[in-house]
Amino acid sequence: RIINAEKSEFNEDQAACGKLCIRRFEFGVEEDQEWLTLCPEEFLTGHYWALFDGHGGPAAAILAANTLHSCLRRQLEAVVEGMVATQPPMHLSGHCIRPSDPQFVEEKGIRAEDLVVGALESAFQECDEVIGRELEASGQVGGCTALVAVTLQGKLYVANAGDSRAILVRRDEVRPLSSEFTPETERQRIQQLAFLYPELLAGEFTRLEFPRRLKGDDLGQKVLFRDHHMSGWSYKCVEQSDLKYPLIHGQGRQARLLGTLAVSRGLGDHQLKVLDTNIQLKPFLLSVPQVTVLDMDQLEPQEEDVVVMATDGLWDVLSSEQVARLVRSFLPGNREDPHRFSELAQMLIHSTQGKDDSPTQEGQVSYDDVSVFVIPLHNQGQGRSSH
Amino acid sequence: RIINAEKSEFNEDQAACGKLCIRRFEFGVEEDQEWLTLCPEEFLTGHYWALFDGHGGPAAAILAANTLHSCLRRQLEAVVEGMVATQPPMHLSGHCIRPSDPQFVEEKGIRAEDLVVGALESAFQECDEVIGRELEASGQVGGCTALVAVTLQGKLYVANAGDSRAILVRRDEVRPLSSEFTPETERQRIQQLAFLYPELLAGEFTRLEFPRRLKGDDLGQKVLFRDHHMSGWSYKCVEQSDLKYPLIHGQGRQARLLGTLAVSRGLGDHQLKVLDTNIQLKPFLLSVPQVTVLDMDQLEPQEEDVVVMATDGLWDVLSSEQVARLVRSFLPGNREDPHRFSELAQMLIHSTQGKDDSPTQEGQVSYDDVSVFVIPLHNQGQGRSSH
Repeated sequence: RIINAEKSEFNEDQAACGKLCIRRFEFGVEEDQEWLTLCPEEFLTGHYWALFDGHGGPAAAILAANTLHSCLRRQLEAVVEGMVATQPPMHLSGHCIRPSDPQFVEEKGIRAEDLVVGALESAFQECDEVIGRELEASGQVGGCTALVAVTLQGKLYVANAGDSRAILVRRDEVRPLSSEFTPETERQRIQQLAFLYPELLAGEFTRLEFPRRLKGDDLGQKVLFRDHHMSGWSYKCVEQSDLKYPLIHGQGRQARLLGTLAVSRGLGDHQLKVLDTNIQLKPFLLSVPQVTVLDMDQLEPQEEDVVVMATDGLWDVLSSEQVARLVRSFLPGNREDPHRFSELAQMLIHSTQGKDDSPTQEGQVSYDDVSVFVIPLHNQGQGRSSH
Repeated sequence: RIINAEKSEFNEDQAACGKLCIRRFEFGVEEDQEWLTLCPEEFLTGHYWALFDGHGGPAAAILAANTLHSCLRRQLEAVVEGMVATQPPMHLSGHCIRPSDPQFVEEKGIRAEDLVVGALESAFQECDEVIGRELEASGQVGGCTALVAVTLQGKLYVANAGDSRAILVRRDEVRPLSSEFTPETERQRIQQLAFLYPELLAGEFTRLEFPRRLKGDDLGQKVLFRDHHMSGWSYKCVEQSDLKYPLIHGQGRQARLLGTLAVSRGLGDHQLKVLDTNIQLKPFLLSVPQVTVLDMDQLEPQEEDVVVMATDGLWDVLSSEQVARLVRSFLPGNREDPHRFSELAQMLIHSTQGKDDSPTQEGQVSYDDVSVFVIPLHNQGQGRSSH
């Protein structure tokens, strides 16, 4: 179901999608021995879409595209009994050890969807460990961002680790379904880690943020700065150590962590070091995604309500509002076309490439890889894609 | 301007309000020596309101009420030259060392209000250090939450560290101006610290969250849990170490950090230890506030637009919406009364005490101390209070 377009050997984006089949464990007792087996038939099914934007080579993105869905399936199968209960039981076995247990679960507000969120969080971490082992074993390197959408039991889950983005586009609404994790958006978390473990910077970097890199002629001056606990700005007197290269440097798309990486969450990068040093990037990176849940039953999706998922190559040149405009101008005119969602994805990519046949010329030209999924919500599970 | 009502020797709430006068430094050269002095006359003026809810005795709250405004004044005076510029200069001296400096400040989006936010953040930390020194020197103990509102240059700043709350009430809008910091709302930050520094728990507590405290008969069962990186829930097999007392325990108002404290941010508590142990609370507490900025020029406040600031005693029994209803039903009928804002504050407190003369009987009765400021925005700086 994936149409490959514009793909070259330089494309580090990877995509995956498919049906998500969750089996259930069966308990039994035989010759006084309890046993547990996976029933072969599907118990719950959903759909899965994933985009991975690789860096430092495509190896991590390829591994993630091949692995993450099985990690997720395994994590979901481990808790599926809790997911299908009216309310997840305190004990997975379903045995109620104390009569007040359901009340404790109720008071914490724990719902079935929290188990799916937990499974997504665990699956990303498990996949990160697999990638670490596999890359080390094969002598490869690299990392990738990960953006995953899953439909299950009438809900849409969007899990994001990196700078890809998913949005919901409806006739009169554009809603972000993810937020981006970059050295800029995670400044305070990253600075705090460097504050708690200064050895991570090996004396080569300064933890502090300044409007620009400081030079010798700034010494002794009072200069604008921010530290980990500050969301506002203040002035400090510049010392020699403030002239070091900043932990987070550059603005917007140019912002880099330790002068090296443009994202602060993702999978892989276990071996990544700052050029010509022993300073590791991995301690500053999180593999855990942020998960957004959308209740599709509540939403009552219309014919042309879609989720657009894309790597940063699209969002660097088109805003969410621009993409929504393109979606709304494309879909109504192509109602009879059974491939219109794929074609919309194709068109969105074209409109970033400055092609002549592009229906609009909004935005600039993207020189980055671009991957797009367009997922119609009305008949969920019929997502089309192009990348 | 503070009316003390319902105050007893058991009241650990403290309040402070007044004019905030900010002087400016004057540079000069005399006999080849550069010097810097504070001009005695006011350069900028604003207003200041603060509520402190003490625990473990009133000492910290009293110190904070006497100290925080001078810390804030000092912090603001240190950056006031930057605050009055169109855009804060990269160098406080105003000398432009590199021609591109203003552009760097512009690209970071640094505005005058960010200096006030930074000054509030630094003032809270400075005040926390003062309290730590003073309490140690006088052999006293205790801590307090802090909620501060400041009007300055047409903006309202609300800085909050703890579980007090400020809301904006207008004819057709109720807007939160702060959020609460408790062991529950800061669970992930607190669990992560325990993960990074397990020695902080001295082997006496478990970092993990469960729906209830686990007992011997839960051993070996798969039970709902959350760790620091999870916003969802999962199941884990219960081991002996999971039976320890939880780092964060209890629900809602009963939630406690290390079985001891109901708030996760505030001032003081430098000496506070878990009863009969050497386990310190302070490493888990933040003194830095979250700051919300409201542009009053943009808001165009109407006659009856007010900010209501109150300690948790009010919000435990009245929701923001209930308070807004009381505000809207009280003010229009008392337009001629010059003391109506004080009386509104008084009335809000009465309506938590189950008094006969209370105009409404919404909500329950509060057994906690209650302090309230009602700040009319139309003529900002005329705040009245009652506590």
